[in-house]
Amino acid sequence: MRVSDLILPDVRDALRGDVRAIAECVEELHPADTAEVYLSLEPEEARLFLKALPVKDQVALLEELEAETRAEIVEQITPDVAARIVEEMSPDERADLFRELPENVAAKLLGEIPKEEARDVKALLAWEEGTVGSRMTTDFLSVHAESTIGEAIDHIRKVSEEMETIYYANALSPEGSLRGVVSLRQLVISRPERRIFEVMETDHLVTVRPDDDQVEAARTISKYDFLAVPVVDDAGRMLGIVTVDDVVDVVEEEATEDVQKMAAVAPMEDSYFKAGFLQMVKSRVGWLTLLFFGELITGSALRHYEASFQSALALVYFIPLIVSSGGNSGSQSAGLMIRALARGEVVPSQAWMVAVRELSGGLVLGAVLGAIGVVRALLWPDVGWEIALVVGFAVLFVVLFGAVIGAILPLAIQRVGFDPAVSSAPMIASLVDVAGIVIYFQVARMVLGLP
Amino acid sequence: MRVSDLILPDVRDALRGDVRAIAECVEELHPADTAEVYLSLEPEEARLFLKALPVKDQVALLEELEAETRAEIVEQITPDVAARIVEEMSPDERADLFRELPENVAAKLLGEIPKEEARDVKALLAWEEGTVGSRMTTDFLSVHAESTIGEAIDHIRKVSEEMETIYYANALSPEGSLRGVVSLRQLVISRPERRIFEVMETDHLVTVRPDDDQVEAARTISKYDFLAVPVVDDAGRMLGIVTVDDVVDVVEEEATEDVQKMAAVAPMEDSYFKAGFLQMVKSRVGWLTLLFFGELITGSALRHYEASFQSALALVYFIPLIVSSGGNSGSQSAGLMIRALARGEVVPSQAWMVAVRELSGGLVLGAVLGAIGVVRALLWPDVGWEIALVVGFAVLFVVLFGAVIGAILPLAIQRVGFDPAVSSAPMIASLVDVAGIVIYFQVARMVLGLP
Repeated sequence: MRVSDLILPDVRDALRGDVRAIAECVEELHPADTAEVYLSLEPEEARLFLKALPVKDQVALLEELEAETRAEIVEQITPDVAARIVEEMSPDERADLFRELPENVAAKLLGEIPKEEARDVKALLAWEEGTVGSRMTTDFLSVHAESTIGEAIDHIRKVSEEMETIYYANALSPEGSLRGVVSLRQLVISRPERRIFEVMETDHLVTVRPDDDQVEAARTISKYDFLAVPVVDDAGRMLGIVTVDDVVDVVEEEATEDVQKMAAVAPMEDSYFKAGFLQMVKSRVGWLTLLFFGELITGSALRHYEASFQSALALVYFIPLIVSSGGNSGSQSAGLMIRALARGEVVPSQAWMVAVRELSGGLVLGAVLGAIGVVRALLWPDVGWEIALVVGFAVLFVVLFGAVIGAILPLAIQRVGFDPAVSSAPMIASLVDVAGIVIYFQVARMVLGLP
Repeated sequence: MRVSDLILPDVRDALRGDVRAIAECVEELHPADTAEVYLSLEPEEARLFLKALPVKDQVALLEELEAETRAEIVEQITPDVAARIVEEMSPDERADLFRELPENVAAKLLGEIPKEEARDVKALLAWEEGTVGSRMTTDFLSVHAESTIGEAIDHIRKVSEEMETIYYANALSPEGSLRGVVSLRQLVISRPERRIFEVMETDHLVTVRPDDDQVEAARTISKYDFLAVPVVDDAGRMLGIVTVDDVVDVVEEEATEDVQKMAAVAPMEDSYFKAGFLQMVKSRVGWLTLLFFGELITGSALRHYEASFQSALALVYFIPLIVSSGGNSGSQSAGLMIRALARGEVVPSQAWMVAVRELSGGLVLGAVLGAIGVVRALLWPDVGWEIALVVGFAVLFVVLFGAVIGAILPLAIQRVGFDPAVSSAPMIASLVDVAGIVIYFQVARMVLGLP
């Protein structure tokens, strides 16, 4: 049972009776659980609940909600109340909120919050979505490289409340350039009279740039098992940090995008029910139409072979079977390759090795399916052994073709600089379908001596 | 340019000349970079490189490598050398290594390492792969709830070297039960004379169990933005912790599994080239054969309608077009739904809402494609407007059917307790293909009055 489910009855009681008891109910809760409580309430209850919370808890609650939900709430409350909450939010969460707000609401709210915070919001909004800049927070812990460890720990005690992480500190020069980093671990285990520059890490300092892809920051943190990575501009000035909890979000987002691309859907940010009907249709109609045009070529191919199947009508039975076998084997290779590329297990220059592997794999898979195809075909009284043979060989070649194309296409797409995940199962299938028909009827002409 | 690429020439120089210079080359490197250097070397160079490192760096290097690579190395070196390295590894990485070793090598190595470590390995290996127990480390920081903060910090200083994280400490009772947790942040900002139990977190203590799915630990850490979560048995005894860096691995692994399932490939653990040829074929042949059997039904369906297409041969041109349109629209819905289910955006009880949404979406998408189909069909001189009309309506119905089935199938699969990601594009396509043929020819019979 979730913590929030345990608390919910108490919250409902308080909402019906003394709303001042609400603050007490959630006092000991983690904001993530408070957010779950909020989301379990009816809209009117939720409004009362939020209103009854102290500002500090309102801020914490809002930070836990998704940016879209957060924006909806802010739109509903008066600008002065909203400003009090927004002012206290952490810079990165606040910027995400503004990204989701309608322009007029955002402009009004910007006027209500203190100038410094407003400037900060504008600076963060300048970074495009998906960049490191759009993920970073500007509340990072910095210490002077010359100060002692004792002084640094005193400083950390004072500012700790406002920081997203205090587990590592950035040692800056007086001009704000990053000179080194030092972990709280290092500070705690060193003698207090030593100076920061004596214990800080300076060799091969790992940083990211604000215009890097957010995936870059995620990979860096994950590779080095960091808790955060500093964001530094071209002049070496420290701009912010990206923390490890963002990495999980980035990895999740990228996985969703991969899956959507593989399903031939244009990436949608909103959740399934949140996305508008038009947005859903729009994200699908483009690819679907493109694939449809690709598939129209199968019509021309079949028309070309009309004389062939007219003289051996049983050939028609196997058209969907043969084209789909190629598509399936292609989808498999493509799926394996897309993930292998995403994880860096394969690089485009290994195309030849991939081709050899898929050729041999496709041969085995094609032989298995081809054999099944021959047996099945022979079970129909009106299908002779010649047509069965045609089916067998066609399946073999088509599966082989699908396996190779399915693996090579993502590599080629990555090579020319696009995301290999767009080589979706449907895209592979469309490509292989036309080839499948050509292979099938060429084999038929050869074996059966058809026109 | 990667750090490892900068260092590589120096390392190669040292390997050709004075191998003792190796230790110096990598001294300032993060183990993740040392690992990259190692992986860039030729096999013989790599062997020399590893041998030239101090034990501490050998341990750090091995911990950065994937479990399979790690196992290969350990198999190649003599058991006594291996034992010296393995002894020093962190418990969770060590257990992962033993999981990958052949039984005889593992047994020999277990005999070489100290009894306490051997016991620890056996205890961790008892947990099934994919569980929290298989992910946790037993090197966790614990403090006495009665001790002062000053004493605790002194203790942390002493043991910090061995710990994976010191950023939060587990406050245990004398019997080893978890009484509370306290962050290093809290310790640093509190007065040293206060006692742990005064500052530790005890309300709604969040823990996971060793036999939980590892995804549970990942979700918990991600939900609460924890750096680690304690693993506790049924009796409340503290067994270990799962740290945030494991979460990224878990999320990555799960995403890979989803993508593989969606591509109709049985999950493979090894990377693309590492997986043996037979393993690759085995992971694919099962699904491919199953789908092939499904697709064989299209043959029976077409055979059933032979009289129809015999009297209007142009109908054959559009068979692949119509069946694939349904498959594509189905793949899209399935892709969207699988991710929505994975992220908890949709629950199976919302099936009706999903069906309504997909019905209306499918209608719009089907109408667009159907219209294109009619136009294209009319451009062929041997296709009359009746057949064009049949094609248009068939596309409309098939796309609609695909959209609904593609969305409902993952919901149904989740409802009966399986992973919705198995409703792959190929699986949806196979289901929709048969329906597509039936829809197509039923429409044709009605419109054209065919037999």
